[in-house]
Amino acid sequence: MPNINQRLAAELIGTAFLLATVVGSGIMAERLADGNVALALLGNTLPTGAILVVLITMLGPISGAHFNPAVTLVFALKRELSPGESGLYVMAQIIGGVLGVWAAHLMFSEVVLQASTTVRTGGAQWFAEGIATFGLVFTILATFKVRESAVAMAVGLYITAAYWFTASTSFANPAVTVARGLSDTFAGIRPLDVPAFVLAQLFAAVVALFICRWLLEERRA
Amino acid sequence: MPNINQRLAAELIGTAFLLATVVGSGIMAERLADGNVALALLGNTLPTGAILVVLITMLGPISGAHFNPAVTLVFALKRELSPGESGLYVMAQIIGGVLGVWAAHLMFSEVVLQASTTVRTGGAQWFAEGIATFGLVFTILATFKVRESAVAMAVGLYITAAYWFTASTSFANPAVTVARGLSDTFAGIRPLDVPAFVLAQLFAAVVALFICRWLLEERRA
Amino acid sequence: MPNINQRLAAELIGTAFLLATVVGSGIMAERLADGNVALALLGNTLPTGAILVVLITMLGPISGAHFNPAVTLVFALKRELSPGESGLYVMAQIIGGVLGVWAAHLMFSEVVLQASTTVRTGGAQWFAEGIATFGLVFTILATFKVRESAVAMAVGLYITAAYWFTASTSFANPAVTVARGLSDTFAGIRPLDVPAFVLAQLFAAVVALFICRWLLEERRA
Amino acid sequence: MPNINQRLAAELIGTAFLLATVVGSGIMAERLADGNVALALLGNTLPTGAILVVLITMLGPISGAHFNPAVTLVFALKRELSPGESGLYVMAQIIGGVLGVWAAHLMFSEVVLQASTTVRTGGAQWFAEGIATFGLVFTILATFKVRESAVAMAVGLYITAAYWFTASTSFANPAVTVARGLSDTFAGIRPLDVPAFVLAQLFAAVVALFICRWLLEERRA
Repeated sequence: MPNINQRLAAELIGTAFLLATVVGSGIMAERLADGNVALALLGNTLPTGAILVVLITMLGPISGAHFNPAVTLVFALKRELSPGESGLYVMAQIIGGVLGVWAAHLMFSEVVLQASTTVRTGGAQWFAEGIATFGLVFTILATFKVRESAVAMAVGLYITAAYWFTASTSFANPAVTVARGLSDTFAGIRPLDVPAFVLAQLFAAVVALFICRWLLEERRA
Repeated sequence: MPNINQRLAAELIGTAFLLATVVGSGIMAERLADGNVALALLGNTLPTGAILVVLITMLGPISGAHFNPAVTLVFALKRELSPGESGLYVMAQIIGGVLGVWAAHLMFSEVVLQASTTVRTGGAQWFAEGIATFGLVFTILATFKVRESAVAMAVGLYITAAYWFTASTSFANPAVTVARGLSDTFAGIRPLDVPAFVLAQLFAAVVALFICRWLLEERRA
Repeated sequence: MPNINQRLAAELIGTAFLLATVVGSGIMAERLADGNVALALLGNTLPTGAILVVLITMLGPISGAHFNPAVTLVFALKRELSPGESGLYVMAQIIGGVLGVWAAHLMFSEVVLQASTTVRTGGAQWFAEGIATFGLVFTILATFKVRESAVAMAVGLYITAAYWFTASTSFANPAVTVARGLSDTFAGIRPLDVPAFVLAQLFAAVVALFICRWLLEERRA
Repeated sequence: MPNINQRLAAELIGTAFLLATVVGSGIMAERLADGNVALALLGNTLPTGAILVVLITMLGPISGAHFNPAVTLVFALKRELSPGESGLYVMAQIIGGVLGVWAAHLMFSEVVLQASTTVRTGGAQWFAEGIATFGLVFTILATFKVRESAVAMAVGLYITAAYWFTASTSFANPAVTVARGLSDTFAGIRPLDVPAFVLAQLFAAVVALFICRWLLEERRA
């Protein structure tokens, strides 16, 4: 079993690559798409789904490959992670996420320190984030139970779908939401709108945990 | 073995996510595609194929992951499901499908209650639905026989192909057809045109069952 | 082991679905792409790659899932198929291919009987077909040797790539070439140009067989 | 175990197909994309990711499927390859890469001998190549450790993502970089800019080796 430093490094590196991909491919796609937003979203979706499969496959055995405070919360509630470890995981995720955004800015010759001005707010958006996070946590818990080796693929494909079927393009991750607040590019979100997204995400994650607990429960006849 | 409530919940939740994806990604894709329908269909295809792999992987071990009355009919004819269970499955699928459509409308700030005005009728369309459903049921039965762990991937890839190679964009599912009747968006179908689609689907599903029965039969030399 | 009727039915049905996909998705993609050929080719590529994975996964255990006279020739030369069986396989593939093209025409309300007028000729095209078929046969033989369960995925991904990296969009299959001669749509080829394509394909298949024989040979030290 | 001639042939053939795909699909995509660079990059990305999965799956058991001097360097430093073998591997990779570029030119009726005029230089590009190669080597080493059968898929998906999330479109491979210097098409790089790219790649590969060594180390409690 990897030690806590190795596990935190895995969370930090994984979340950094996730955010570098989300923000970097967003910049690339928007610059090249010539104003066609569907094409830009496609150029943002495929890299994000692909990198998730890679990161979860290779870092899952080290840290569990959460990269997501909502997922860490769920595993803490399941008592598979202590409160102390959970706090460190969340810190590593947020630091990694911010470093990933900054790396994307550096690669694309953007100013490193930014704050987004993209408004993402209102009931429909919050509902969308709730659905997105409910589905993500549900996917992780149910796939983990029935076929653990398929979790990486399932999460990558779920996010590929959710970028398009949710009106918010599916942040579904508080660390991702905070970090995207620091990028005034395609993938950004105004810092003012971050807290409501995070609340919707955490609430939906807990709901998914309870529904999965019942749905996946095995009873004696 | 999961109890009947767990199995019905899996059918309902799975069909709801399937329809939320079909209708939601259709709305998103059409809004962003700037009038290019090929791009819109691409933005509708990838999420649908992806979510099918996820849903079948994680819910297959619970309910069989039909999400489709034509598939449930086939398993009832194979006597792997009782008539009573089959009826409940179909009800759960239709309710789930409608809830999924409404969830998509809510996420995208559309009026919740709608009826489609998109005309989809005529012999070519019905023939296309027959081919689409024949291929889907054939894929499920044959893949299940030769490599059960590949069914989820096979169905996701089959539908990815069928969205493009059938003139009807491959509904291939009575619950999906009924539910899409309630959305006047990219993925909709006029309620008046629903019954003929459903008939073509059920007829083709039964044909596929009989051809597979012969093709996959193992005989002694 | 399936009997010869089952095997021929698998070859016929598989090649029919392959051609219905190639031609059907070509018609759909071209109609919707608004003149953008890259988008049309994308809408032709993804369904073709996807259906190949499905068809080979589910029909491989029945007939070997050749769907391709060049592949059947290679297995005949390897003496894994008798000359008589090989001839029947090729007939089933060609009949299936033609039926698939006609099914696509019916679904899209096109005239059923057509002959293509698309010119595809010249040394660069023939060289491209040689490379395409060499790569396809190489992929099948090498993947079969090292990881049989990965053949379906490998062939689907290979053709996904070859649609774009060969100037001919990679027919790589005499039955497909003959059948596409009968469709004056996106995927067509003028019947006059078919023989040279077929010759290039068969020649390259045999070259691939000999190179693989050496490359994959296991020697004692 | 394959002998050294078989292993070198696998490296040469694999790198040739990789470059034929990178350059060939770049030409095809740019010709068809009607000036939309996002669409051209998409038509370049999917084939490259797909062919990598195929090549690594089938040639991995023969040569290790490096196709990349930076990867060969890492395995030499890990002492899994002798210095002599490593030198031969790199030669086979460069020769294969150049042959692949020339094959692409022939297929697309381009002049065979070219030199690129596309400027790719500056700190942001070099940083991007560093990130790209770090991620690639990290992916290979970590996936190899935790699930060897997933390496082919992981590398294909990683490059799919990296084409979009790095500003340089992720060459991440000195043999690829040299060979792309010889093509004045979509995928080209001015020969003058090649050395800095190669240095950034080799440096990042070594950094990834050391970080992985620590991260994947198993310690006793």
